[in-house]
Amino acid sequence: MRVGELSKRSGVPVPTIKYYLREGLLPAGVLTSPNQAHYDDEHLRRLRLVRALVDVGGLSIAAVRDVLAAIDNRDESLHEKLGAVQEAISQPGSGELDPLAVEDVLAFVRRQGEEYCDVTESNVTHMLAMALSAARSVGHDHFHDLLDPYLEGLKIIAQADVEYVARRGSPDDVIEGMVVGTLIGDAVLKAVRRLAHTQASRKVIGDGSAD
Amino acid sequence: MRVGELSKRSGVPVPTIKYYLREGLLPAGVLTSPNQAHYDDEHLRRLRLVRALVDVGGLSIAAVRDVLAAIDNRDESLHEKLGAVQEAISQPGSGELDPLAVEDVLAFVRRQGEEYCDVTESNVTHMLAMALSAARSVGHDHFHDLLDPYLEGLKIIAQADVEYVARRGSPDDVIEGMVVGTLIGDAVLKAVRRLAHTQASRKVIGDGSAD
Repeated sequence: MRVGELSKRSGVPVPTIKYYLREGLLPAGVLTSPNQAHYDDEHLRRLRLVRALVDVGGLSIAAVRDVLAAIDNRDESLHEKLGAVQEAISQPGSGELDPLAVEDVLAFVRRQGEEYCDVTESNVTHMLAMALSAARSVGHDHFHDLLDPYLEGLKIIAQADVEYVARRGSPDDVIEGMVVGTLIGDAVLKAVRRLAHTQASRKVIGDGSAD
Repeated sequence: MRVGELSKRSGVPVPTIKYYLREGLLPAGVLTSPNQAHYDDEHLRRLRLVRALVDVGGLSIAAVRDVLAAIDNRDESLHEKLGAVQEAISQPGSGELDPLAVEDVLAFVRRQGEEYCDVTESNVTHMLAMALSAARSVGHDHFHDLLDPYLEGLKIIAQADVEYVARRGSPDDVIEGMVVGTLIGDAVLKAVRRLAHTQASRKVIGDGSAD
């Protein structure tokens, strides 16, 4: 297909596609004449992935380049690639780490059979330590008590997430699905959690309907 | 205590405290002289809550004012206050709603025994419809298949959340706990979900460790 059709099928404007080509986020098409190139389904898949990383993930062009490098690294398994992508889309944010929150995270991951010397080794454990530090900074010193029930519920959710992406065809599609599923899934979970809160509050605290 | 100590104990700079006082987010202290006011533990607690809402929740000053008004409304039951507070801390964001995503949400809440004519009636259902619209806009038309397993996992999580706050002393503390627990809990869940992804990916996709 020509660039116009690539744009139409992906929903990405032609100037944006040209920008991605210049930045090396999309491999060049096959030249069919000095000023015309041909693109295939691989380009379409890659373009959808780049769009997911930029538009859904809010990643910088440099960060997208790192993610693509991890995906294109043939020495890594799909499981490792998913891990690398997850790191790239999990920015812990800035702020101070509370040493007690760091201890809480290390104890939690040890209970899961993992070992870290430093929570900042991984963006994911860093993100968790930041959140628990924020809880401690507002006087919630026992928020870590929630980690085990959270993980229990999230095992069901993560299983559904991984099954959702694992049935997709190519590695690019699996990874695109994981990026979209992780980031848009965060927003879906936020909303569904609030619906579940209403149900749980009615059950535990009561809405007075029994009066 | 004086404003300097309030600042020290809360970690909030004096000019920020004065800004919150001017905006009505913090009740005025008791004047002990024409240019000196006295603050108590209630001020400290409210200040920590405001800071959590602004810094952790990323809420606007207007949204913080709505949350505080709901907490201070004595005519509502605790369950109703929790619902009102949850609405205030759940901003759906801006963007276009996809009519098919709206249908998905209406079908989902109907399965839960709720009835809405319009998803924008509630910020929570609006937020959910926005997230599913975002998924559809990048070609993920079957994201709603995840809603049932998400709710299954989130029932466990919401039960833990409500038990966490219900054991707190005063109604004000319950609500403060729910605000902090919901907003900081969102960040904790994001991180723990990623750890659960790693475990699920190892199980479903395999990390090659069996080779």
